[in-house]
Amino acid sequence: MEQDKTELISFADLKSFCKQVYQGVGVPEDEAEMTADLLVRSDLRGVETHGVTRLPIYIQRLQKGYVRPVCKMTILKEKGATTLIEAHGSMGHVVSCKAMEMAIRKAMEFGIGWVSVKESGHFGTAGLFPMMALKKDFIGYVVTNSAPIMAPYGGRDRILGNNPLSYAFPTEKYPPIVLDMSISVVSAGKLILCRKKGEKIPLGWAYDKNGLPTEDPYEGYEGGGFLAAIGEYKGYGMILAHEMLTSILTGGKWTQHIKSLYEEDKTGIQGTCHSFMAIDPDCFVGRETFKKDMDRYIKTVKESGKAKNTKEILMPGEPEYRTETKRMKEGIPLAPNTVKELIALGESFGISLPIMNSHG
Amino acid sequence: MEQDKTELISFADLKSFCKQVYQGVGVPEDEAEMTADLLVRSDLRGVETHGVTRLPIYIQRLQKGYVRPVCKMTILKEKGATTLIEAHGSMGHVVSCKAMEMAIRKAMEFGIGWVSVKESGHFGTAGLFPMMALKKDFIGYVVTNSAPIMAPYGGRDRILGNNPLSYAFPTEKYPPIVLDMSISVVSAGKLILCRKKGEKIPLGWAYDKNGLPTEDPYEGYEGGGFLAAIGEYKGYGMILAHEMLTSILTGGKWTQHIKSLYEEDKTGIQGTCHSFMAIDPDCFVGRETFKKDMDRYIKTVKESGKAKNTKEILMPGEPEYRTETKRMKEGIPLAPNTVKELIALGESFGISLPIMNSHG
Repeated sequence: MEQDKTELISFADLKSFCKQVYQGVGVPEDEAEMTADLLVRSDLRGVETHGVTRLPIYIQRLQKGYVRPVCKMTILKEKGATTLIEAHGSMGHVVSCKAMEMAIRKAMEFGIGWVSVKESGHFGTAGLFPMMALKKDFIGYVVTNSAPIMAPYGGRDRILGNNPLSYAFPTEKYPPIVLDMSISVVSAGKLILCRKKGEKIPLGWAYDKNGLPTEDPYEGYEGGGFLAAIGEYKGYGMILAHEMLTSILTGGKWTQHIKSLYEEDKTGIQGTCHSFMAIDPDCFVGRETFKKDMDRYIKTVKESGKAKNTKEILMPGEPEYRTETKRMKEGIPLAPNTVKELIALGESFGISLPIMNSHG
Repeated sequence: MEQDKTELISFADLKSFCKQVYQGVGVPEDEAEMTADLLVRSDLRGVETHGVTRLPIYIQRLQKGYVRPVCKMTILKEKGATTLIEAHGSMGHVVSCKAMEMAIRKAMEFGIGWVSVKESGHFGTAGLFPMMALKKDFIGYVVTNSAPIMAPYGGRDRILGNNPLSYAFPTEKYPPIVLDMSISVVSAGKLILCRKKGEKIPLGWAYDKNGLPTEDPYEGYEGGGFLAAIGEYKGYGMILAHEMLTSILTGGKWTQHIKSLYEEDKTGIQGTCHSFMAIDPDCFVGRETFKKDMDRYIKTVKESGKAKNTKEILMPGEPEYRTETKRMKEGIPLAPNTVKELIALGESFGISLPIMNSHG
């Protein structure tokens, strides 16, 4: 089939499509629902890099047996407000939903909950897990290790990940604050894009394979270089701290032993490690006051003086919230390549992609 | 007295001097001991900006009644692993020591402990509080708000602080990992130094009063500009998250209402807000295994390939540890100006500064 147009698909339809595909490879209905929801919500919020464009590789990995289709989580330890979980190579999305739920339950009982997981896998958009805490008006947090694409400060070996963190804070009237960030200045995707366009990159984005600053996007990533951390040694320190709060704390796989989603992985599971935290503001200023004060604070920041040439001050999560609102009404636009891949994937399961209309 | 030489003073002597001075303004012996220890350990570890150079201003503020000499902390709420404390303008150092101890006790019982404090004050070097968790082989963490020296991303009003965070992780043979960082690319002090030397600053360090990037160190800070956050909008997001985890969570003073140590403060107390966390690795991989794995991990990072022209890969806290070891043996070097100020301060209490020898 010829496919060269961007297509619009409704949130519900795209989610239903993904859910059916997951069920097609043996994922139970509730877990297929959970994963499809997270995947399509990434696209809904404009985080396309972690949305349905990953469905083909996720399904391939399930088919190859790299990932366990039925979630298995073993509680290795549980004390007070903490839990340690082994996830046996289950789907990162499902594991993370369940672990975040556990952290929230712990916070209901103890004011704070911390759940650490080892032997998990790629979980998509980090921000969606802390956001689960918002329905209780709790603060949510997640930190994870990842695949190796960065080097130590002063080093040149790719043994570190961009180990993202994410926070979600409840609000009253404003959109919730959702900070979702990796610790690299830019993503590897941005370097690949610059290389394709034949553009130079600014110093400070990446280093070459000798560990020297580079303006060449190829040398900075595909050619064996590595991404720069925010704040140089500061980001480097955060990346290490995040590794220690995940893989070292759980006894799980270090970043340097984690294979990317796209690498052959016959020797075993991906093994990503995550830690989830929830905090109940009722143990502090109080949930209602917290939300009201968040609104007051956001208003103050947004209404403060703008830099010359800046029209609006945005809060973390605000652009994604706007995209979500718009796309929930108008549908999610999918790039031609993604449409093509999803159609092909659907066909192999006898499921058709429910396109709303075309707007080439 | 003429004073134009760097002087060496032993840790014990300098601490004893500071302790006596604190006692001279009515601070009880145990709290004077605690504060003097933190202050002098900052110098010991090479963090001079937060060490005894601040003693004169701390003492002045106590004398003026801006800071409460006898620590008063009220537990406003306590549930499970969490505690909320009002510190009534007590000394930040003492408050933070006691709050961190509480977080550690909570972690002993619940695996994790989180203690938030409002109405505190300047607490010096952040890293020293999480380090208190190391004696139990726990992980320690602190986050704080601070005085306003930064603007929102896209803004120009100084309403944000560089809101530092600090983590400490226990190890077996290697020095503990201590990450202690503010969220600005550089400190304001660095800009003042460049201005004094007549040097330009690199783009990316600061913005001018219109919110535009500047290479002029004066425009970037003293002239009404503001410091840049690490990773631009990423650091901006972290700064907001840190504000929400401290002042908004506790119902305390927002950064924009906090006066710097050096401002007139007749209307009331400084009011800084902090949150402290401790995590017991025994609830996860186990304390002994954690420390062994930390060593293995540190070894791997330190022994990984070096960038061209780099001799050694350092871990967070390693330079400070080396300075501490050296200065504990050889004494702490104090700059001429600091010596002069401390001598004058001591004289007003009839206490002499115990100088080891001179090495001008």
